[in-house]
Amino acid sequence: MPLVSLLTDFGVTDTYVGQMKAAILRVAPGATLVDLTHAVPAQDVRAGAFLLWTAVEVFPPGSLHLAIVDPGVGSSRRAVAVRSRRGDVLVGPDNGLLLPALEQLGGLALAVELTEVAYWGALRSRTFHGRDLFAPVAGHLASGVPLEKVGSRLERLEAPFRLPTPTAEDGCPVGEVVHVDSYGNLVTNLPGAQLPARFRVRVGLTVVEGAPHAHYQSVAPGELLALVGSAGLLELSARDGSAASVLGVDRGERVYIEPV
Amino acid sequence: MPLVSLLTDFGVTDTYVGQMKAAILRVAPGATLVDLTHAVPAQDVRAGAFLLWTAVEVFPPGSLHLAIVDPGVGSSRRAVAVRSRRGDVLVGPDNGLLLPALEQLGGLALAVELTEVAYWGALRSRTFHGRDLFAPVAGHLASGVPLEKVGSRLERLEAPFRLPTPTAEDGCPVGEVVHVDSYGNLVTNLPGAQLPARFRVRVGLTVVEGAPHAHYQSVAPGELLALVGSAGLLELSARDGSAASVLGVDRGERVYIEPV
Amino acid sequence: MPLVSLLTDFGVTDTYVGQMKAAILRVAPGATLVDLTHAVPAQDVRAGAFLLWTAVEVFPPGSLHLAIVDPGVGSSRRAVAVRSRRGDVLVGPDNGLLLPALEQLGGLALAVELTEVAYWGALRSRTFHGRDLFAPVAGHLASGVPLEKVGSRLERLEAPFRLPTPTAEDGCPVGEVVHVDSYGNLVTNLPGAQLPARFRVRVGLTVVEGAPHAHYQSVAPGELLALVGSAGLLELSARDGSAASVLGVDRGERVYIEPV
Repeated sequence: MPLVSLLTDFGVTDTYVGQMKAAILRVAPGATLVDLTHAVPAQDVRAGAFLLWTAVEVFPPGSLHLAIVDPGVGSSRRAVAVRSRRGDVLVGPDNGLLLPALEQLGGLALAVELTEVAYWGALRSRTFHGRDLFAPVAGHLASGVPLEKVGSRLERLEAPFRLPTPTAEDGCPVGEVVHVDSYGNLVTNLPGAQLPARFRVRVGLTVVEGAPHAHYQSVAPGELLALVGSAGLLELSARDGSAASVLGVDRGERVYIEPV
Repeated sequence: MPLVSLLTDFGVTDTYVGQMKAAILRVAPGATLVDLTHAVPAQDVRAGAFLLWTAVEVFPPGSLHLAIVDPGVGSSRRAVAVRSRRGDVLVGPDNGLLLPALEQLGGLALAVELTEVAYWGALRSRTFHGRDLFAPVAGHLASGVPLEKVGSRLERLEAPFRLPTPTAEDGCPVGEVVHVDSYGNLVTNLPGAQLPARFRVRVGLTVVEGAPHAHYQSVAPGELLALVGSAGLLELSARDGSAASVLGVDRGERVYIEPV
Repeated sequence: MPLVSLLTDFGVTDTYVGQMKAAILRVAPGATLVDLTHAVPAQDVRAGAFLLWTAVEVFPPGSLHLAIVDPGVGSSRRAVAVRSRRGDVLVGPDNGLLLPALEQLGGLALAVELTEVAYWGALRSRTFHGRDLFAPVAGHLASGVPLEKVGSRLERLEAPFRLPTPTAEDGCPVGEVVHVDSYGNLVTNLPGAQLPARFRVRVGLTVVEGAPHAHYQSVAPGELLALVGSAGLLELSARDGSAASVLGVDRGERVYIEPV
């Protein structure tokens, strides 16, 4: 049985995540569930898409990812399950949330709209398709029901947004901060492979020299550094501190790379 | 082996939940644990009772629910395990925490005071019966020890409070906010089945017209709406926002239903 | 297969914990994972060491504890796995994080530096050894690979700090607050076994009489009490409230015991 990961904006102060897990395990009692995060900012589909993208690569091929950030729940937005070319399955609303992760896993092999009510749960609310529709379907898929059975084939998915891609000015890479993690690291959209061998980073009025740094202890406590982080993207950090606090910047801030 | 759910006010910044899980798994190594929430406000038995009530229905019959919000730990309050008429088992302090969920599961079939020390753990603290008493007993029950074995039969449970029930004024339903969820949705105690076909909702000086709404996208971003949520209760929401912030209200606020 | 506990400073808003779990389960698909906490204050090795120490005793002997609070990740600090005399295994950075828990479990039986890259993961980042090194090794150890195989034997571990030990003034025990839990309980470093039969506690300008108290309901709501908590240490609490708020104190505050 595949690993089943969960990513939502449900938070963990309510019982929503637990109810969703019960709905999966009721169908697939032996499933192993892995929480990615339930702290996606409420209704922030882009943030959820980025976080899901960061997480899927390390899972074994054939894993199942259930992701729900779903401001359109109950409306005409479609519920979907998709298979990646690598053989993984992603389940969630068709609002762009799944796309970056799907591309990370090799792109789309098959998409299905979850129209087959025989695989939905017994409870039917207007507001909690996570529990009543997505989780039961995910449980059935984890238990071996073929993707083709849970609904009708779709030719394409909705693509209402893309994660921002880097640009260039005067031949130099220009990116932006796409995520601030819980340490205050500023994760940019600049892939390590596209960076010069040696460079400085300019953010607002601040310049970080000596990049890329080898590790956090390459600078003195409190000082800024720049290295390629665990998602393969350039990150700005403060040793033993928060780069977000030191720099006073947030998502969307532009980041300029200057080769030296 | 049944699913074992966990609901506490322990928080997740300490290791208390992990210690409790180890105590269960030490006795029942194959058990599947599902966190409902550990963010019940400290010592708030009523809030815990409501949250537990919201979560149990979706679990498969025969599940085991371990719930601990226990300001009386170490005093004369009793530790209990109860079986519902549906066949589920609830374990926790006898302080009212378990009662609404028990009623949701069909009512009381058998109650036992956890007096049989052979089923307690090896560690014995005055302050952490979650780890030292409730978790080991839950592990034994999950492993198949009959409920009758873990203590002495009780005729009745303590019932120090009830969740508030709706009232009426001039023939119209009047409820109150009983929970504010992590999105800022205001969950009332008004069951969907008791509402008129079309109505407006009055909260403080605000009137929400056009209820019940079909889904969140029935109104413009930021506007208020009212629909029956995943617990079967009327909820006030703000599309892509927080009704609690928009209205500036909290638990206990009165909610008036006016048929139209 | 042993229980595998996890303690980190990763937080749960990012996907780091989920990625680490995937890396373990990819190697050891049947492992049972138990979160201790992921809310260790960022880079606070001492706080992590204390929290790990509180949690390990209740786990069955032979459990595996993966603990990562690792400001030196990517630098020359060593990655280690150690076996306790009780037969448990602890995996993490060699920065003092594991030592108090190791002593709690009977002391060091064998220490190994994780130099055998065959047991690392396929992803290799500079910043996330939790996912790329520690988790895969933990998975292999949980699956039965002998500790001796995953690297080269070490004679001793780094010991950069110790948890504070109580002192005495005029023959009376003097301790300090070493942890503030999520209820606001002030956990001291004073073991219950070293306390007089009856005593008062002095903290700042406040005196708590009548200690040790039997349970929280020994005093009126809001009042202070002192009892031996679940870690075997003296704790200061406020009934139905937060002693940290009532007293306005934090970690490091001195606590004086006066026999009566």
